[in-house]
Amino acid sequence: MTTNKIIFHPDNNGINISQGTDILEAAITAGVYINSPCGGKGVCGKCKVRIKHVHEGAPLPVETKTTGLLTQDELDQGFVLACCTTILTSIEVDVPPSSRLTKEQILTQETKIEHLERVVSRIETIEGEEKKVTGHTPLVRKLFLDISPPTMDDHTSDLERVYREINKLEELGDIFTSLSNIRLIPGMLRDSNWQVTALIGRDNKLLSLEPGDTSLRNFGLAIDVGTTTVVVQLVDLNTGKVIDTEASYNRQAHHGADVITRIIFSHKKQGMDKLHQLIIDTINDLIQALIQEHNLRQDEITSIICAGNTTMLHLLLQIDPSHIRIDPYIPAVNFMPLITAAEIGIKINPHGLVACLPHVASYVGADITAGVLASGIYQADEISMLIDIGTNGEIVIGNKDWLVCCASSAGPAFEGGGIKAGIRAMEGAIQRVEIDPLNYTVRYNTIGQVKPIGICGSGLIDTLTELLKTKIIDQSGNINANIPTKRILETEDGLGFVLVWEEDAGGSEDIIITQSDISNLIFSKGAIYTACVILAKKIGFEVNDIERIYIAGGFGNYLNIEKSIMIGLLPDIDRDRYRFIGNSSLSGASCCLLSDEAMKEAEEIARRMTYIEMSADNSYMNEYTGALFLPHTDMGRFPSMCR
Amino acid sequence: MTTNKIIFHPDNNGINISQGTDILEAAITAGVYINSPCGGKGVCGKCKVRIKHVHEGAPLPVETKTTGLLTQDELDQGFVLACCTTILTSIEVDVPPSSRLTKEQILTQETKIEHLERVVSRIETIEGEEKKVTGHTPLVRKLFLDISPPTMDDHTSDLERVYREINKLEELGDIFTSLSNIRLIPGMLRDSNWQVTALIGRDNKLLSLEPGDTSLRNFGLAIDVGTTTVVVQLVDLNTGKVIDTEASYNRQAHHGADVITRIIFSHKKQGMDKLHQLIIDTINDLIQALIQEHNLRQDEITSIICAGNTTMLHLLLQIDPSHIRIDPYIPAVNFMPLITAAEIGIKINPHGLVACLPHVASYVGADITAGVLASGIYQADEISMLIDIGTNGEIVIGNKDWLVCCASSAGPAFEGGGIKAGIRAMEGAIQRVEIDPLNYTVRYNTIGQVKPIGICGSGLIDTLTELLKTKIIDQSGNINANIPTKRILETEDGLGFVLVWEEDAGGSEDIIITQSDISNLIFSKGAIYTACVILAKKIGFEVNDIERIYIAGGFGNYLNIEKSIMIGLLPDIDRDRYRFIGNSSLSGASCCLLSDEAMKEAEEIARRMTYIEMSADNSYMNEYTGALFLPHTDMGRFPSMCR
Repeated sequence: MTTNKIIFHPDNNGINISQGTDILEAAITAGVYINSPCGGKGVCGKCKVRIKHVHEGAPLPVETKTTGLLTQDELDQGFVLACCTTILTSIEVDVPPSSRLTKEQILTQETKIEHLERVVSRIETIEGEEKKVTGHTPLVRKLFLDISPPTMDDHTSDLERVYREINKLEELGDIFTSLSNIRLIPGMLRDSNWQVTALIGRDNKLLSLEPGDTSLRNFGLAIDVGTTTVVVQLVDLNTGKVIDTEASYNRQAHHGADVITRIIFSHKKQGMDKLHQLIIDTINDLIQALIQEHNLRQDEITSIICAGNTTMLHLLLQIDPSHIRIDPYIPAVNFMPLITAAEIGIKINPHGLVACLPHVASYVGADITAGVLASGIYQADEISMLIDIGTNGEIVIGNKDWLVCCASSAGPAFEGGGIKAGIRAMEGAIQRVEIDPLNYTVRYNTIGQVKPIGICGSGLIDTLTELLKTKIIDQSGNINANIPTKRILETEDGLGFVLVWEEDAGGSEDIIITQSDISNLIFSKGAIYTACVILAKKIGFEVNDIERIYIAGGFGNYLNIEKSIMIGLLPDIDRDRYRFIGNSSLSGASCCLLSDEAMKEAEEIARRMTYIEMSADNSYMNEYTGALFLPHTDMGRFPSMCR
Repeated sequence: MTTNKIIFHPDNNGINISQGTDILEAAITAGVYINSPCGGKGVCGKCKVRIKHVHEGAPLPVETKTTGLLTQDELDQGFVLACCTTILTSIEVDVPPSSRLTKEQILTQETKIEHLERVVSRIETIEGEEKKVTGHTPLVRKLFLDISPPTMDDHTSDLERVYREINKLEELGDIFTSLSNIRLIPGMLRDSNWQVTALIGRDNKLLSLEPGDTSLRNFGLAIDVGTTTVVVQLVDLNTGKVIDTEASYNRQAHHGADVITRIIFSHKKQGMDKLHQLIIDTINDLIQALIQEHNLRQDEITSIICAGNTTMLHLLLQIDPSHIRIDPYIPAVNFMPLITAAEIGIKINPHGLVACLPHVASYVGADITAGVLASGIYQADEISMLIDIGTNGEIVIGNKDWLVCCASSAGPAFEGGGIKAGIRAMEGAIQRVEIDPLNYTVRYNTIGQVKPIGICGSGLIDTLTELLKTKIIDQSGNINANIPTKRILETEDGLGFVLVWEEDAGGSEDIIITQSDISNLIFSKGAIYTACVILAKKIGFEVNDIERIYIAGGFGNYLNIEKSIMIGLLPDIDRDRYRFIGNSSLSGASCCLLSDEAMKEAEEIARRMTYIEMSADNSYMNEYTGALFLPHTDMGRFPSMCR
């Protein structure tokens, strides 16, 4: 088979691939990140790349499908969609900033999660309190054993001698181990002069013995396996201190931005294996970075706790997620088994343990269980709500006596999905917008203070609010064509409002919010608000009576509460009843890494939470229709907007 | 490399092997059994075979070492020792009856273990009693699950739905399973219309799911892994009924008759792997025979409980037994882990469980734990003794409050080891002997009523008693050369007494008991008796005060109590205080296969038993010296011998 070389710029990253491969597939193979939220179906238009050395009018050295997602100007410059373009000869390709993930953007992402330090200190507080009650109980503990050698008077067997020594140090009771470990023990005990370190899991399993004293070096990882982003936190299990946090995009994103697209991809030939391997690779690379940065040995990392949505953790453990997307939406498993790192190829100590926080349902995953744990609402007297705004928007209401939850099918609009100029919160993303009510000029700022390439979630909420305040849109979201400004113009998606003119933009076209984008944002905000209202009603409350609302999720931290209420995304309650809890998926996992008590509470939370299916509720459509208004058809629910 | 063909007769079993291989190794490879108690060291002389088509005086087509263990007559007939003879060309070899294991001899062996039926009914009695308390608790149970499919209102995950159904049938509480099982569950549940059978281990592990209802077919095996013989008992786990029992020689016996020789062999290159594979092959062949005989499917056998001595179970699980034979004699493990059949290659359901009864020490193994369980001495008020007479002779004394045990280094004399004409209890073995006190003619009978080829244990005890009664030997065991009979003659091992003249024997020479044999028997019986006395003294008793003595071990059943007391092998107490309990290793294992309660009791027995090292006792040599007399220097201990 003929192979051709493809070189990706600006990284100058080359790979030989067989003729006929598409550019997206080549990029995945080469480890080059190209945005592809639709999973390579050629419908989102986000995977634009430019074939280099192409002169206007000359035939392209590729075979590409016309998709209508590229402007004539882009076509003339040699832009194609990576997923729709197969290679005919060796080529060089430019991946523009809007399609790629640069090192700087990863750093931005890291900056974004710095707030976790606050959550980390919270963990330590929790841990500090728990130490009084349950002691220090990391998922895997290390005990140095200085064993007295056998004599005629003390002829206990090798294995029971090890167990006896462990129980002298910590009264664990019945310990067990694998046959393969037992086979190694007689030799190791004698070779190491009866001085060994035992790795013991929380289930009292002796995971392995190591020669000598390695007990001072015991590290664990809390991992948030997000659909978009994977965050790995390194924790010293002896002190409970967070050492560092690394984050990157989930490499599965090549095969679609949302869980549904990935589940569908998993049905393709070897699709499941590929998705599984991509998340494992993503995690292993992050671990490798932490190992190098902090001079660790792989074996010194002994344990991992993962949180994430139901689909992500199914793919992580290579369990079929099919039925998550098929009525009646059933996960294969909510309480994942405790496994060894070797079982799924995660590169830490191969005897090390990997645990997952439990799910509640197909669309209320371990990330939400972790969020409830981190928020503490399951222990409170007052009735609280947790809103995790991501692709779906999961909502939990409860207190120490009961917990109910639901998932709204909000869609990914607030993550930039389905929005023409929508992008993730990365360098060049517009995050703040102001529109002058007199002349309609736009002031904005971007992440990284560079030229704008698109709008991220917080920028979209700002935009919607400003459009509303300046009456460019009415309360139904319709753009008023009569406003006297050139910024309102006709696009192929109906009317649009130009936020940034081409000459000021980092890309090759105007940054426009269209009528269609506005509708999508209203559908999304309406879905989240409706879910809050219906869930509250289910347990006999008005949403405005909720005593505290926790906002979780990476996006949550950039949410402007005032503006979110103004567009009817969040309920109109006292602003000081809102709390941001950041990436509570990660902080919950980190908590469980250090404390068995916390893990047990997470399990209890998942068991206690009653899942309510929104689509099965009779009043849903009625409520939802009312919420497709800015902020709502029933203004009585938004009293502060009436002043 | 040149290969030659070797054909073994009478089975006409041929194999191609590389030139220079010894005949014993070739036989092992070909699956032909040749006696080799010394493990191929060329010192026992039991592996005699005859090269066929050899004419007197012609050079042998083999290279053989002169060992002095063959008579000139045998050498002239082409006899060689299989372990000392390498092949130079293709040959045919005759394996004489005394060196081989024929089908008839296996049947004899089976006849020998028929008495287990009595023990089996005893198990059922125990099981019957326990049913009242603990229910039917086989090692692996099968539960048919008719699961209601998920709906929007009942959206429990697949795995938790299975667990919920199990707990509806049996309240097991927390169940767990492996990741590989979880991966199969979503597909299997839907393919089998939500009707599946769960295999559940005693530790509440869901071992596997099978489509449809297979719950009526659930079988288990109790296995006695003896150094010499392996016995496999097939049990219907639904009814508790014993279906059949198969037995064969342990194929490891090619590499030595006793555990020490095997441990030494295990240090050779791949020695451990070979020994492990040989016992697995032995067991698998027996299982295959049971499967064929009773029309089972391999998957229908779900569980195994093994008993055996410490070394045998180490080799079974491929755990290094080295330190068992090195001061201070430490096993790698006494409480073996619960493993799956697949882990050690036993061919039953690969998810099926294999459990071992626990050991007490290097020379008090799971067979003795099983014996204590089967005898019931651990529950009795009265003080009882258990004597297992095999290669070692293990002794337990105790009651419901305490248990002590020891191993005597009796050696294998009563199994025919170290005795010139000694053989195992097989066809042609002399088992009963009478000597006429007037003319010294000998009457005997053999197993199978055929021409005698050697003497087995019960025959040796008879012989010793008769020699003593007729004063052919004195109380020190010395042969009186002045007795007027041709049967007393000079041998290379000192004086000897001819039991069978060559013309009446099945082999090619006289069957003689020599002065050296008599000494070995006295050493053996002295060691066992001394161990009984010292162990009793340790807990402040005279051995004659023991209220009940249980005799265990295959050999035990053919033991003549009266004659054993006469030679000072057993204590001189009322004969009705003796009880035979047969192969209690097997019956104990069988018991634990059906009853978790019994297994827990076995574990408790092993924990409770205090092991006492005989060789560390100060009075041992003094006691032992007194016991090297027939019956003893202190005749006060054998009052019934003085009447």
